[in-house]
Amino acid sequence: MKSSLSLCQRAANAASKYERYVPSCGVFPLGFKVGSIATGVKKNGQLDLGVILSTYEREGGATAAAVFTTNKFKAAPVVASKERLAKSEGRGISAIVVNSGCANAVTGAVGLENANKVVQLVEQQLGRKDTTLLMSTGVIGQHLSMDKIEHGLGTLLNNDDAFGNDFSSWLSLSKAMMTTDTFPKLISSRFTLPGGTTYTLTGISKGAGMICPNMATLLGFIGTDLPISPSALQNILSSAVDRSFNCISVDGDMSTNDTIYMLASGAIDTDLITESSESFPLIKAQVTELAQNLAQLVVRDGEGSTKFVTVHVKRALNFADAKVIAKTISNSSLVKCALYGQDANWGRILCAIGYAQLGDCASLDESTLNVSFVGVGDSKGAELNLVVDGVPNVNINESKAATMLADTDLKIVVDLGTGTEECNFWTCDLSHEYISINADYRS
Amino acid sequence: MKSSLSLCQRAANAASKYERYVPSCGVFPLGFKVGSIATGVKKNGQLDLGVILSTYEREGGATAAAVFTTNKFKAAPVVASKERLAKSEGRGISAIVVNSGCANAVTGAVGLENANKVVQLVEQQLGRKDTTLLMSTGVIGQHLSMDKIEHGLGTLLNNDDAFGNDFSSWLSLSKAMMTTDTFPKLISSRFTLPGGTTYTLTGISKGAGMICPNMATLLGFIGTDLPISPSALQNILSSAVDRSFNCISVDGDMSTNDTIYMLASGAIDTDLITESSESFPLIKAQVTELAQNLAQLVVRDGEGSTKFVTVHVKRALNFADAKVIAKTISNSSLVKCALYGQDANWGRILCAIGYAQLGDCASLDESTLNVSFVGVGDSKGAELNLVVDGVPNVNINESKAATMLADTDLKIVVDLGTGTEECNFWTCDLSHEYISINADYRS
Repeated sequence: MKSSLSLCQRAANAASKYERYVPSCGVFPLGFKVGSIATGVKKNGQLDLGVILSTYEREGGATAAAVFTTNKFKAAPVVASKERLAKSEGRGISAIVVNSGCANAVTGAVGLENANKVVQLVEQQLGRKDTTLLMSTGVIGQHLSMDKIEHGLGTLLNNDDAFGNDFSSWLSLSKAMMTTDTFPKLISSRFTLPGGTTYTLTGISKGAGMICPNMATLLGFIGTDLPISPSALQNILSSAVDRSFNCISVDGDMSTNDTIYMLASGAIDTDLITESSESFPLIKAQVTELAQNLAQLVVRDGEGSTKFVTVHVKRALNFADAKVIAKTISNSSLVKCALYGQDANWGRILCAIGYAQLGDCASLDESTLNVSFVGVGDSKGAELNLVVDGVPNVNINESKAATMLADTDLKIVVDLGTGTEECNFWTCDLSHEYISINADYRS
Repeated sequence: MKSSLSLCQRAANAASKYERYVPSCGVFPLGFKVGSIATGVKKNGQLDLGVILSTYEREGGATAAAVFTTNKFKAAPVVASKERLAKSEGRGISAIVVNSGCANAVTGAVGLENANKVVQLVEQQLGRKDTTLLMSTGVIGQHLSMDKIEHGLGTLLNNDDAFGNDFSSWLSLSKAMMTTDTFPKLISSRFTLPGGTTYTLTGISKGAGMICPNMATLLGFIGTDLPISPSALQNILSSAVDRSFNCISVDGDMSTNDTIYMLASGAIDTDLITESSESFPLIKAQVTELAQNLAQLVVRDGEGSTKFVTVHVKRALNFADAKVIAKTISNSSLVKCALYGQDANWGRILCAIGYAQLGDCASLDESTLNVSFVGVGDSKGAELNLVVDGVPNVNINESKAATMLADTDLKIVVDLGTGTEECNFWTCDLSHEYISINADYRS
């Protein structure tokens, strides 16, 4: 039996994760400035409010897209922003406000009034209407401390020096979104398209793997300086989220506040990107990869987890069934426990594949099914066949298995052999720490 | 942080569960005899093979019904029995063989040959064809030790003294099904129908709550002495399983071997029960209640669990949505952790309700939603309102909550206020022990 980690060890692990996953520099898209402040909502005095401003105003300014939670109980900021974004048809959004410490969820009519009040405050300051979107994360069932928010927001917006488009400003913004996260999540990349246009993608997210007390609120923002039509932007973001934030298994719970926004400032002087642009598929792939990297950080940020596992389902009949199989394996408590116990338990994986709710039964054929572990960390290149053409390998090389399973990173490859589609899902193990953290949250 | 239980404590807990949940007598339906033997498949020499014989042969003998796993990977005994039962059209089944220790799952063509060989052995002995069904549970990916099974089965079937229709024989049978179960599961009841006919229901099951190494195989058998038409029997069993064994949340994993059989010997001299019989709904309700009691024992038999929780969803628009909400709450890792931590965390319950995949969105209306804890153990009668008409109770009486949550038994009542249907689901908490047991299984 493994003993639980001490608080000291937890802090040490968190520190090393910070070193490993937080960059020390970055690249940032033209046409944005971001600022953050500590309003006092977080009792420890840390940053808890951030504002993203789109500063490029030609041709109607930035275009916007969003993916909101599908939870039927939507928090006030989600309700307010969804309506506003629909009304704007994805054009002219000039501000996104994010606050942490209070989720403004399950707060009824007063919560919605408060959300709209935050929007009004920003829009009065900016002198524009219907241009502001919101994200909130934190405790649910409590109202926003409007005095603190109003005061903090006023102070921030009236201080132009508090805004910037540099590494320090973006890192602070990503910190202002954090709740149970042990490190801020910031990723950026610069790309050159075939025609020679260079553009930038910067993404931030929050959400903390397995620990997520109360509920695993996932927030994210991706900014780019390309000019992209609203429908192309929504297409890109929806597809990217479907293959990234919707492909991580935390604990299967979906929060009232989950929100991912994307803004395209259009500050780069190039042709408008639409669904029919030649570079559209490439940009979509680049955004997807950035979103995947951001989403993986959420899985890695689990104090309760000891493993980072990629579940790769390949040669599937269709993407939907590849995804449902990857998700079912990733969410199986028994598979997660086996990973924690460093047990090459093919039976649990096979069982999970078998009860996945497939759209098309033809996706699964026992006789063409192969399952293996592939080393991606210290065991890179190593492969361990667990099931070959539907037949379990009962003589597993246990010492090889032990070495591979001792690594932090592992890949489970499920080759369905029924088609050409594939899906990656990212998960972690289920540990004693997860139970401790989630059982002891309120007390 | 809670420390893990020692082996000694676990053994003591198991002993007290045995005392609490295993009866010391019972009533048994006419027209059956059952026998058990230790074949040596279980290495500790315990009972691992049982045979249920239907001995009443008039009017074509017993009728049979079954509910099999929906896992796409079906174990050989499931494949063989499903085919045989379909061929029989539910008539003339005279034997059910159950073995534990080896699941004969993921064993390919050889596994199916072995399953059919077991059937042949029984049918040669009985001198009848196509009358035998199978159930297997235990390690998967391993072949049946046919020499042990053949020898044991031969010895058992040739010794009529090994068979009986008394408490001791049925208790032994329920023991012969056990794998990780800490106590045998046997329930029986006698009923008198309005017309004066007295009949008996006896049920056995296996499956062990949260611990279930490898996968949570669930086996069950219900016998009655009423004469029931095959289609009425299947109707009764399907409905009962849908409201019992399919309403327990263990870890969400569904095994390759799950099987519930029902046999009606017809040994009582009364009119054949069909779907149009006046007593049909009453019998259905009585079978459902017995099946629910059997299923609840599976939830209670979790070494890893400290709580037995009934999730009661009421005033729902339809049964399907009531069930999906109850199931989603019951399967939420965060809700289960909160229960283990004795935390009145309405937020996690609300969140789970919100992400339940409803068939009809009208099933859920925030303004009519009420959630409460109801005491069923030592706190019987106590009620704690968590959400009232969609508004969370932020001033929860913490000392009352603490008392109620300290009980082993608890009921979570979700009143949707959108209809008249209801569903009960039974679940347990997610504890350190669960992780220990499932992480350390193979090692």
